[in-house]
Amino acid sequence: MVGLKVECGIEEVFGLAKARLQDCGLLLTSVGLHGKPNVMTIGWGLMGRLWGQMAFMVAVRPSRFTHGLIEETGEFTVNVPPERDLDDAVAYCGRVSGRNRDKLEESGFEVEKGKTVRSPIISRCVAHLECRVVGKSRLVSELLSEDVKKSYASGDFHTLYFGNPLRILI
Amino acid sequence: MVGLKVECGIEEVFGLAKARLQDCGLLLTSVGLHGKPNVMTIGWGLMGRLWGQMAFMVAVRPSRFTHGLIEETGEFTVNVPPERDLDDAVAYCGRVSGRNRDKLEESGFEVEKGKTVRSPIISRCVAHLECRVVGKSRLVSELLSEDVKKSYASGDFHTLYFGNPLRILI
Repeated sequence: MVGLKVECGIEEVFGLAKARLQDCGLLLTSVGLHGKPNVMTIGWGLMGRLWGQMAFMVAVRPSRFTHGLIEETGEFTVNVPPERDLDDAVAYCGRVSGRNRDKLEESGFEVEKGKTVRSPIISRCVAHLECRVVGKSRLVSELLSEDVKKSYASGDFHTLYFGNPLRILI
Repeated sequence: MVGLKVECGIEEVFGLAKARLQDCGLLLTSVGLHGKPNVMTIGWGLMGRLWGQMAFMVAVRPSRFTHGLIEETGEFTVNVPPERDLDDAVAYCGRVSGRNRDKLEESGFEVEKGKTVRSPIISRCVAHLECRVVGKSRLVSELLSEDVKKSYASGDFHTLYFGNPLRILI
């Protein structure tokens, strides 16, 4: 129950997030100015300090439904799934687009309203970051190694979103 | 003594690096195709996974001497200082440019040759990453928040270097 969660230091959530990132992935929620929130699975992400503040960087391809939502509101949440019991749902949210589906509902995820952002947090997850985008950067082919370019066969270069965690829950 | 160090998992070094990043900063070495290696202090950096591999992201302003060196060789090392006893040297390496000084020598840093990169590692540090740049991204004003733009009053927008750790030592 998210009601039992408490605000905590960033290090605790970063530690949990890193472990699950490599393992099954994390759940990112976003919402546009109108319409329902969406969830996607991320297997890539960077954490640390930038511009004198804590930062969580996510990479989102412009073709993804989430991209348009983050562009609209400049916000997202990162949710760390518990070990094992959400693995199927996490895999599903990485496979299917939210453009025509309600993945939060289909996955049976209960959500709670974010306190500092419009995007919800996913109740059954064990840790959460409510992030406001403070900067972004667009990848371009010329600045990537040949090996990395293989991730972009269709030319769908990620936008890097640098989120500042406004609220940190565990 | 670096001779006593062993190769280890990335998580151990990321943990140490994050703690010291917030505290006093980390030491980044680089070297051009000709000339001596340089060291600079970084207080910002992000760690995690990107493009299916581990990544350490550093932000370097084009005006910095280090920027030209990384552009030449596409490599750097990250060195985690021990607690306290190098703090003055770390502060010095963040204050002074290496363009006309040999900061490694002035700081009394013994170095060891990198095994996978040309840049050296600093012996008295407690952990090291030898990184090859696999991608970079240039920040532009239009994609930054008003608050973040204050870091760029002189227009010297960071280049983000994404390094893949080829060798991880503790």
